[in-house]
Amino acid sequence: MLKISHRGEQMPASPIRKLVPYAEAAKKKGTKVYHLNIGQPDIETPKQTLDAVRHFDFKVLEYSHSAGNESYRRKLVGYYKKVGIDIDYNQIIVTTGGSEAILFGFMSCLDAGDEVIIPEPFYANYNGFAVAADVTVKPITSYIKNGFALPPIEEFEKAITPKTKAIVICNPNNPTGYLYSKEEMEVLKDIVVKHDLYLFADEAYREFCYEGTHYSAMNLKGAENNVVLMDTISKRYSACGGRIGAFITKNKTVLDTAMKFAQARLSPPSFAQILGEAAVDLPDDYFDNTKAEYKKRRDVIVKRLNEMPGVFCPEPGGAFYAMASLPIDDADLFCQWLLDSFSYKNQTVMLAPATGFYGTSGLGKQEVRLAYVLNTEDLNKAMDCLEKALAEYPGRAVSAK
Amino acid sequence: MLKISHRGEQMPASPIRKLVPYAEAAKKKGTKVYHLNIGQPDIETPKQTLDAVRHFDFKVLEYSHSAGNESYRRKLVGYYKKVGIDIDYNQIIVTTGGSEAILFGFMSCLDAGDEVIIPEPFYANYNGFAVAADVTVKPITSYIKNGFALPPIEEFEKAITPKTKAIVICNPNNPTGYLYSKEEMEVLKDIVVKHDLYLFADEAYREFCYEGTHYSAMNLKGAENNVVLMDTISKRYSACGGRIGAFITKNKTVLDTAMKFAQARLSPPSFAQILGEAAVDLPDDYFDNTKAEYKKRRDVIVKRLNEMPGVFCPEPGGAFYAMASLPIDDADLFCQWLLDSFSYKNQTVMLAPATGFYGTSGLGKQEVRLAYVLNTEDLNKAMDCLEKALAEYPGRAVSAK
Repeated sequence: MLKISHRGEQMPASPIRKLVPYAEAAKKKGTKVYHLNIGQPDIETPKQTLDAVRHFDFKVLEYSHSAGNESYRRKLVGYYKKVGIDIDYNQIIVTTGGSEAILFGFMSCLDAGDEVIIPEPFYANYNGFAVAADVTVKPITSYIKNGFALPPIEEFEKAITPKTKAIVICNPNNPTGYLYSKEEMEVLKDIVVKHDLYLFADEAYREFCYEGTHYSAMNLKGAENNVVLMDTISKRYSACGGRIGAFITKNKTVLDTAMKFAQARLSPPSFAQILGEAAVDLPDDYFDNTKAEYKKRRDVIVKRLNEMPGVFCPEPGGAFYAMASLPIDDADLFCQWLLDSFSYKNQTVMLAPATGFYGTSGLGKQEVRLAYVLNTEDLNKAMDCLEKALAEYPGRAVSAK
Repeated sequence: MLKISHRGEQMPASPIRKLVPYAEAAKKKGTKVYHLNIGQPDIETPKQTLDAVRHFDFKVLEYSHSAGNESYRRKLVGYYKKVGIDIDYNQIIVTTGGSEAILFGFMSCLDAGDEVIIPEPFYANYNGFAVAADVTVKPITSYIKNGFALPPIEEFEKAITPKTKAIVICNPNNPTGYLYSKEEMEVLKDIVVKHDLYLFADEAYREFCYEGTHYSAMNLKGAENNVVLMDTISKRYSACGGRIGAFITKNKTVLDTAMKFAQARLSPPSFAQILGEAAVDLPDDYFDNTKAEYKKRRDVIVKRLNEMPGVFCPEPGGAFYAMASLPIDDADLFCQWLLDSFSYKNQTVMLAPATGFYGTSGLGKQEVRLAYVLNTEDLNKAMDCLEKALAEYPGRAVSAK
């Protein structure tokens, strides 16, 4: 009998996409669905970056360098300098999305059976790359009651075993929106240096900080060899479909190793490298507007959520996600019910159940993630739906907050 | 001490790209280098496919479906129909190059420690994906003396162990150019069906067959559940930088499993999907010109090589590669010597030593791979260089042919 692989069986289906058939069915019935379930921004990709692609002038769509076009990597140095990160162009490998940067990191630094510590809730696809790399995720729980702050150092110390090889941190955080302070980053530095661990830093949402300042893991003094930055232009420039990211480290051995994985897949996509290169030339105030828009949306959604009886949503300091605890029995059931059994003025809302973001089974059953990627008018309508839904939902329960 | 992973250590550096620094040094000295070392065609990407990308009209570069745009997948069904392969659009996952299709296949069907049989010499990057998936490649040797025909069935039977889970076949073959006959494909079918193995079929060069007809693994009756097609538009439309391929199978369990890996990396690149979709509309005679050009080049290179004393090059039936045995001591040393110690009329040629294409250590030391991706005038000049070089090379030896 032909069998699929064990890791193929273990591979989780996307928790965010599994409700898609229910959303499609709702739309077929004529119900308008507000999508707060995925991090696909509605912000327009900057016109001048799209124009750069339109005006390419090559005649042969060739492989680029396996590390990405040198011209792009040299320009990226300027981008990183602006955000306070000092690197050389040959410390950058351009990747196929942030996803591939994560995969290269796991593959280059971790072996089958190794453990990686990740504060939960965390970006669900880390699970997927861990399964691909045969690595075990050891979650450390952060809690909604204190806004998902970094768990105390003792929790990390307790979780570290001889098999622990790395910590993954997403800052600002997806799904919680939490922005780690410089002090918290220093705590992480102390841990990784003391225990010889890698620190994989996913900073996809660097530009979107509404309170305080972003402190990059690349600036942790003394941890230069531990830190691997996993970056992407997807959210920064609303360019998710380009599939352009970056794997960056000052650790030459790790970089050389990742480069071998990069060579095996030949090159990152050519067209969107042009877009990424043009994006470095956007005016310095480009992010001001985008950030102001996201902040406005955040304020709307957080206010609306906290006004609902039994709902609690800590204010996210960055990214474009909010986590909320709801007075419900089961987030998965509730999110499905929103799509297959509820509508208000012929509209409903699609949310991501938080269960998929926890590594510890049973956690997140009263929590949902909301991506505030719609304009405030639509957000308000989506919140109207949610408010009505919570009043109607047969599985209403006392909030766990 | 921070250490990289064991698989990172094992990961082979690209055998094709490791000579690049020597080529760069030669160019800096002012020597013209004819690149026959990599499969980067000089054929122009069809203008109407590039124009389709230039004329995209979206404002937000969104993630596509994880399996690729439905419109593209539906059109691909028409392309495959034309080449005699009958599939449904939902049996296709659009991948980031053929590379990702190979990775998805290994990840979905094979576990750490499993074995995959590949006739050698083979595409060197299979090694890389095998290391990434922690899978062991078991090579079965094919020989230049009979043009690299499929090894006899007994060789496969001997190599099969309880850990064997799959056979990889590249048809027409990279690096040998060998085109497998229908009879040989039937032999493979019998083996995979008898032993419950997957047959991973890399048909990247399907359009480039100069003698005989291509027989796709997808048409092996009775092996529908065994066969996974790993495809790419890179060579077909000279669109290597687009990074668009396809993972295709009629085995629903395998497809569903690969889909989970596809979801983890979100989506394939958007821009080049537009190109791929437009390419399906190219006129039916599009490949006639390209094929005629490659055939002319093949004829030039094979004739020139076989005229050189001590050189043997079997006529390749497809793809755009030729393997030649040379009267030299060591192909790696010779290829480096061509770049760092030789020039003729201020020109030299870059070749790929065949050692990197063999899984069995010690094989291929008198063989090189030549990609005939240059026009015939340049090819002739490159052959002039090679002829002179073989006469001058201090490590000249009797050919092993």
